[in-house]
Parts: sequence; C-alpha cells; structure tokens
Amino acid sequence: MKATIRKNDPTNTRGRVLDAAAGLFSRKGYADTSMQDIMAAAGVTSGALHHHYSTKKQLGLAVINERVAATVEEAWIDPVRNAATAEAGVRKAMTDIIADLKEGSIAGCPLNNLALELAYAEPQFGSALQPIFDRWTQVLARQIGATGFALAGPAATAEEMATLVIAAYSGAMTMAKTGQSVQPLKAALKLLTRLLEPAPSIGPADA
Amino acid sequence: MKATIRKNDPTNTRGRVLDAAAGLFSRKGYADTSMQDIMAAAGVTSGALHHHYSTKKQLGLAVINERVAATVEEAWIDPVRNAATAEAGVRKAMTDIIADLKEGSIAGCPLNNLALELAYAEPQFGSALQPIFDRWTQVLARQIGATGFALAGPAATAEEMATLVIAAYSGAMTMAKTGQSVQPLKAALKLLTRLLEPAPSIGPADA
Repeated sequence: MKATIRKNDPTNTRGRVLDAAAGLFSRKGYADTSMQDIMAAAGVTSGALHHHYSTKKQLGLAVINERVAATVEEAWIDPVRNAATAEAGVRKAMTDIIADLKEGSIAGCPLNNLALELAYAEPQFGSALQPIFDRWTQVLARQIGATGFALAGPAATAEEMATLVIAAYSGAMTMAKTGQSVQPLKAALKLLTRLLEPAPSIGPADA
Repeated sequence: MKATIRKNDPTNTRGRVLDAAAGLFSRKGYADTSMQDIMAAAGVTSGALHHHYSTKKQLGLAVINERVAATVEEAWIDPVRNAATAEAGVRKAMTDIIADLKEGSIAGCPLNNLALELAYAEPQFGSALQPIFDRWTQVLARQIGATGFALAGPAATAEEMATLVIAAYSGAMTMAKTGQSVQPLKAALKLLTRLLEPAPSIGPADA
C-alpha cells in the first residue's frame, strides 16, 4: 500500500484537529465524542490524527491548553486587562459574549463544560483546567483591587470578589445553556456590574 | 431457562437503580456510565433494570425528575423556605453543603453536572432540568423580595438577584470541583450573604 502523501503542514492539520475537537467537546461533550467524529469534522485521516495525538486523552489535554485557555484569554482576560476599571472590563466581556450567543444553540462555556464533565473523573484534566481559572481570577482581582467595589469592607478581598464574578458568569452560562436563553447572563451582567461600581459612592456596609 | 424470581418490591429495586445511576452520573458523567455500570452498582440484574427502564435516556430523565430535583429541594429550597430571611436561608444551605464536602472527592452539583453535560446535546434533558432551576429561582426570589438586598435599587428585581445567587453558587461549585477545594464556595458564601443583607442599612446605589 502506498503511503499517503505527507503534506508537510503539520501545524495546519493539528490546528484543524484541535478546532474540530474543541467544537465537538463543547457541543456533545468529551465522553460522547469519538476519534472518528473528530477525524470526520476535521477532514483528516486516522493516520494524520494519530500522528499528532495517539489517544483521545492527549487530544483533550491539548484542547484545554491550546484552545480553551485561548478562548478565556480572548473573551475575558483581554477585555478585563484593557479596560479602565473592573466594572468596564466585565461589562465589555459579558456584553460581547451575550451578543454572540444565539438562543437555541447555546453550547456553554468551553472551560466550564470540560470542568464539569471531567475535572473529577480525570484528575489530569482537572490539573490542566485549574490554572485557567487561576489566571482568570488573578487578572480580574488585580483590576478589582485597583478600583474597589460597591460592597467594599475589610472582610472581603479583591480575589474573593473576582471568584464571585467568575462563578456567577460560569453558573449563569450553565443556566443559559439549560434554558437556551440569555436571560440568566443578562441578570448576572446587570448585578455584577453594579457590584463592581467603584466603592466611594456608598460607604462600607458593615464598618 | 427458569424465570428469575420476581421479588415484587419494584419500588425498592427502582430506588436502588435511581440511587446508583444518580451517583454514577455525578461522578463519571452520563455519557461515560453504561447500563452495565448501573446494574453492578445497584446490584440488580439486566432483567430487573430493563423492567423499569428500557433505555439509558429514560433512566436519565427519571434521575433528573426523582433524584436531582429532590436533592435541590432538600439542599437549597427547604433551607431557603424555612429561614426567616433570604440571607439566612442562603447561609444555611451553603454552609451545610460546604461542611459535607470532602476535598479530593468533590463531585459537584448533580443539577449543574447534568445540565452542562446534556442540556444542549439532549434537548429532552434540558426540558427536564429547566423547571428545577425555575423553581429554585422562584422560591429564592420570593424570600429576597420579602427582605430586600444591600444592592437594592429600582433597576434590579428579586428574580434577577435570585438568578445571580444560584448562578454564583453553581459556578463556585464547578470551580470547587475543578480545584478540589472549597475556597470558591466560601468566597461565594461570604459575598452572597453580604449582598443579601436587608437593604435599609445602606441607601440605593443609584437612586
């Protein structure tokens, strides 16, 4: 049998495989996606796929490190870092995400989807996913620390508030996915941006 | 072949099957759990299992309606309904849940696990899961409406605040599962209870 012609653009094949796998994992879940599904979606042969990833687990880890992390960077971390205040950054990130969603085909946040499906059953996935949450929290906490927040007070730190914001966004996306409606995200956006208004307008609640 | 002896306690067999399936779906995910896994965990024969549920999908829907809904009722809705204020109810629910978690074996919230895995890929699951989020939101919104909240103002409704609380709890549980740490839940508990402090202590932020 003749060897298949090696196109010698491994980066592109790899990129297509990662894109296809990231999309399928988000829409169908990791467990329900087969290597065959990924080959078909990426338009690559079994040989080409296995040249890059010999197991689905290797591919899953690459999707986390090279696609999920990049999505969070682009959708959340860049807007937060480039905004003048935490409130403006969260508003920009969530407004753009909501605008991009189409009710009826809300597949959810790729980070949260994989985290809920795999973080516990596959500890290696948990270890790959946690640094993404950590970085997201740290960048947001830095902005919150600089501008303060409406519920200020000695007891809550900027990191705790960043955790709340990320948790609320993540949970609202799960609810949006369940009901195929952007309403939970709109409610979260409204309240989180109010919560992140700089502190001076009202005094600490329990000083 | 002799028919297996029918013990005539279908409720109990059914209950064991539902318990086993609910546990496996939470820990391993729905897609990764086979009917064989459920038979083994429940200690029932294939005949007994299929007598009650001929497909995994039927069983999945029964787990949502009879186990996941009951878990949310017991862990969240009862404490919220029985408390004097929304703040006290949320504090009680989250404090008890955090106390029950063991780091290293945090499997997450059964509702959110199934919602993220299946709500989009299996619309029937989404339709079964959505009423659980709706009821949870309504009961909490009723309490919040009665006591107000620290971030009060004409623009935010009690239902939006209830959505934020449920979203933040849900997302914090995902983060807890990812990092196998209760810290995100503790941060959410601290800030959500402060947010739910009755309004009179501070004025509306943007009146």
